Amino acid sequence: MEAIAIITILALMQAYLFAIQVGQARGKHGVKAPNTSGNDDFDRVFRVHQNTLEQLILFVPALWIFGLYVHALAGAGIGLVFVIGRFVYRGAYLKDPASRSLGFGLGAVSMAVLMLGGLVGAVMSYMAG
Amino acid sequence: MEAIAIITILALMQAYLFAIQVGQARGKHGVKAPNTSGNDDFDRVFRVHQNTLEQLILFVPALWIFGLYVHALAGAGIGLVFVIGRFVYRGAYLKDPASRSLGFGLGAVSMAVLMLGGLVGAVMSYMAG
Amino acid sequence: MEAIAIITILALMQAYLFAIQVGQARGKHGVKAPNTSGNDDFDRVFRVHQNTLEQLILFVPALWIFGLYVHALAGAGIGLVFVIGRFVYRGAYLKDPASRSLGFGLGAVSMAVLMLGGLVGAVMSYMAG
Repeated sequence: MEAIAIITILALMQAYLFAIQVGQARGKHGVKAPNTSGNDDFDRVFRVHQNTLEQLILFVPALWIFGLYVHALAGAGIGLVFVIGRFVYRGAYLKDPASRSLGFGLGAVSMAVLMLGGLVGAVMSYMAG
Repeated sequence: MEAIAIITILALMQAYLFAIQVGQARGKHGVKAPNTSGNDDFDRVFRVHQNTLEQLILFVPALWIFGLYVHALAGAGIGLVFVIGRFVYRGAYLKDPASRSLGFGLGAVSMAVLMLGGLVGAVMSYMAG
Repeated sequence: MEAIAIITILALMQAYLFAIQVGQARGKHGVKAPNTSGNDDFDRVFRVHQNTLEQLILFVPALWIFGLYVHALAGAGIGLVFVIGRFVYRGAYLKDPASRSLGFGLGAVSMAVLMLGGLVGAVMSYMAG
């Protein structure tokens, strides 16, 4: 399960990086806490971070369940697609939120594969006793 | 732990479904990213998703710790109450946010049981060496 | 891993407490769902909870990976610093959001140690076969 753990940490570090970038955007655009909205540029950086966290909440458990009940290395590979998809999402969103579909889709589809695969794997393992 | 894994995936899929419904509500009510607020109907769908994610952050670790240190099948049963509670919450919230108490309570109480049970189980396991 | 489980539950209970305090602040300041902003006092309580959840999303997986691949008791000790940091953060933020740096830093640095340590531990375990 080390490969699963490594991909998990990479995804955590990515979200940590996005959080740092929100802090930088607060300074740059003069958006002081507790405000979470200001000008459009800040809002984009803020939403990329928020949306990445929303995905991470589902991604980490799905990745581990897939790794435990289906295949650890395959799960890590799919997880890597998720992390790359999040960088693609970020790049597109900052240019134009309407262009975020590809990056979003890479994340959403890889997560769906982890969830569905993990469900099938866990059910089969349960039935096999 | 397969039962715990299966309930986890069901809870993840529920949140994934709520996310899709936020996307649909964006289209229906013309709320474009990065905006997260528009009319009241959109706000309700958005808040149901957000609140479900907030709960999920606590639910998944509590469920697994309960499963590991107390009882896996009992944990899965309590977890199922949580997932059902979230659907009840959603139905009520979309009609009238003031009526969300029952669904919210089902989730909050089942999560409290998982946390408290998990804490007691882990402490007893630690003391037993 | 009981120590890791216990610290995890403490962090979950802390976030649960902060959520209850948001509910109380809704009543006190008359901020009705689905609104998430009202007066400045409510916004501070709301943001403390949100920011704690954002950190928790990263904290729990990092804590467990550190516990699995580095050292469980050391991980639990670092995790305790994180939880204390979140209380410090809350106290400062409610008085003056600009004074939140110390509490925020305790959480951010302890989490960075868990992530980096966990990554090194998992990579070394992987290479050791």
